Amino acid sequence: MTPVIPPTSTSFDTPELIRRTLAGERVPLARAISWVENEAPGSVELLDACFGASGRAFRIGVTGPPGAGKSTLVTKLALEYRGRGETVAIVAVDPTSPFSGGALLGDRVRMTELSGDPGVFIRSMATRGSMGGLAVHTAQVCDVLDAAGFQRILIETVGVGQSELEVAQTADTTAVVLVPESGDAVQAMKAGLMEIADVFVINKADREGAERAAFAIRSALELRAHPTEWRIPVHMTVASQAGGVPELVDRFEEHLVFLRDTGRLEERRRARLEQRLTDLLQARLWSGFRARVGDEAWREQLAALASRQATPHQAAEKLAGK
Amino acid sequence: MTPVIPPTSTSFDTPELIRRTLAGERVPLARAISWVENEAPGSVELLDACFGASGRAFRIGVTGPPGAGKSTLVTKLALEYRGRGETVAIVAVDPTSPFSGGALLGDRVRMTELSGDPGVFIRSMATRGSMGGLAVHTAQVCDVLDAAGFQRILIETVGVGQSELEVAQTADTTAVVLVPESGDAVQAMKAGLMEIADVFVINKADREGAERAAFAIRSALELRAHPTEWRIPVHMTVASQAGGVPELVDRFEEHLVFLRDTGRLEERRRARLEQRLTDLLQARLWSGFRARVGDEAWREQLAALASRQATPHQAAEKLAGK
Repeated sequence: MTPVIPPTSTSFDTPELIRRTLAGERVPLARAISWVENEAPGSVELLDACFGASGRAFRIGVTGPPGAGKSTLVTKLALEYRGRGETVAIVAVDPTSPFSGGALLGDRVRMTELSGDPGVFIRSMATRGSMGGLAVHTAQVCDVLDAAGFQRILIETVGVGQSELEVAQTADTTAVVLVPESGDAVQAMKAGLMEIADVFVINKADREGAERAAFAIRSALELRAHPTEWRIPVHMTVASQAGGVPELVDRFEEHLVFLRDTGRLEERRRARLEQRLTDLLQARLWSGFRARVGDEAWREQLAALASRQATPHQAAEKLAGK
Repeated sequence: MTPVIPPTSTSFDTPELIRRTLAGERVPLARAISWVENEAPGSVELLDACFGASGRAFRIGVTGPPGAGKSTLVTKLALEYRGRGETVAIVAVDPTSPFSGGALLGDRVRMTELSGDPGVFIRSMATRGSMGGLAVHTAQVCDVLDAAGFQRILIETVGVGQSELEVAQTADTTAVVLVPESGDAVQAMKAGLMEIADVFVINKADREGAERAAFAIRSALELRAHPTEWRIPVHMTVASQAGGVPELVDRFEEHLVFLRDTGRLEERRRARLEQRLTDLLQARLWSGFRARVGDEAWREQLAALASRQATPHQAAEKLAGK
């Protein structure tokens, strides 16, 4: 196996980067994550090594509508976990931001509170790679952090769209963060968050209407077609003052125990792995197909479509025949 | 061509449904849309016929965060267009809702204001079909409505996630609706709405902070890396009282003229068609691949993944080899 020197690196060959990443060294770790994000030449080898060494970390997804205070909450959660002696990695995912301004902003806040602690690692992600969507990349980055020995990984996603749900679902436990404004609570159903939440958090609970929002969510949970064994808690926090954060961490740890004892942890992780395999294969199939078809035939069919000489279905038939 | 009687229909064969849908009859039209949503046996033939007869309608996407008042605004827009003598179809898309409660709610409001007008057709969609995602289905349903002769199609999407952006981008013109609370304005950048908005709307502009929000958006627009020829308007409305709605319709029509005169309309429609073709082919490739691989080999690789005997990359390699 000859060492590969990817363009993004002048200082590491692949085996060295893998060894030092698995040893938990920060600089190689940061570089390793960049390899994954950029799909650098050595990244497959790196990912294979990290996947083998992963599976120990507890991955917690934190999602919810913009403005719910997720960045602050995640920062306080990290501090609480540190207080309990756990090492923590934060992955802030911003699928739609072109300049991931949000994530950067969140990081700046975090820096002041978490900087200098070797037990904390913070990373922002906004890139969507060719090998499947952002969810795949997030899961891969979490594998690297997991393999590097971080015990708790907090995955923070912005927004309430499909891709955010997918990212949140790379986690073992998913917390949905809302604010008292009842609108959010009602919209939570719309946004499909009811289906993915293991824990509901009403942040900024010192604001008016927190109790009402909690009630709305609890009622909505009662109405679900398929109630779960796990009684989904609706927990209030005031993240800016770390209010309710220790109790929220307790809820997370309780859910982890529940998942382990009921075999659900393995079940969920199997389902996630199946999704990752699917994403990888779909991306691979498509690039292979496009290479096979070639640009000329592709352009031909597009022209036929634009002139209404072919329908999408007919054009697909033609190209799929190749 | 032998007529196909799909299970969802007892009263129409395919040629008759096509003929009467193209003639703009409401009942067949509603049935035709159901065929598309359910991918009924006759739907391909139907879609081919409708695609050929489509391209005349002006498609306007209306998106933005939950609670921005999109349903009300879209209703008032429909009324304004009706006042100008245009026929209007409303497609309310709710990608994440399991029981599309939101869309239904919006419809109930609309019913009272638009009911009984043969020049208006309202449809809610929440299903994600096998042939590509919701965006494909939305575009197909719009083709049907277009072919049925509706002159303006208002596509309303809930939320600010990736799938909503994709749906919004099946339109010729995309309006992004926000509320005065400045948070939304700032979050708009995060949500990538800046990239897709042809028109910005501050709804509920009678609330405090509307001017500030408009200013924030205008400033953000100034800061864009790639400013466009079209000067994106930031328009204020109070949809509940139809305030600013006629002027908003003027903005839409101005944008349509701009798109036509600059050739951008054809450009955009070509890009949309390419996306649709891609979605169709990807779905087709995947179903073909899974059938080829078979369940046993699939389960084998999943087991290897779960036991960490294979990595996602290795499992993908094995299966893709088949």
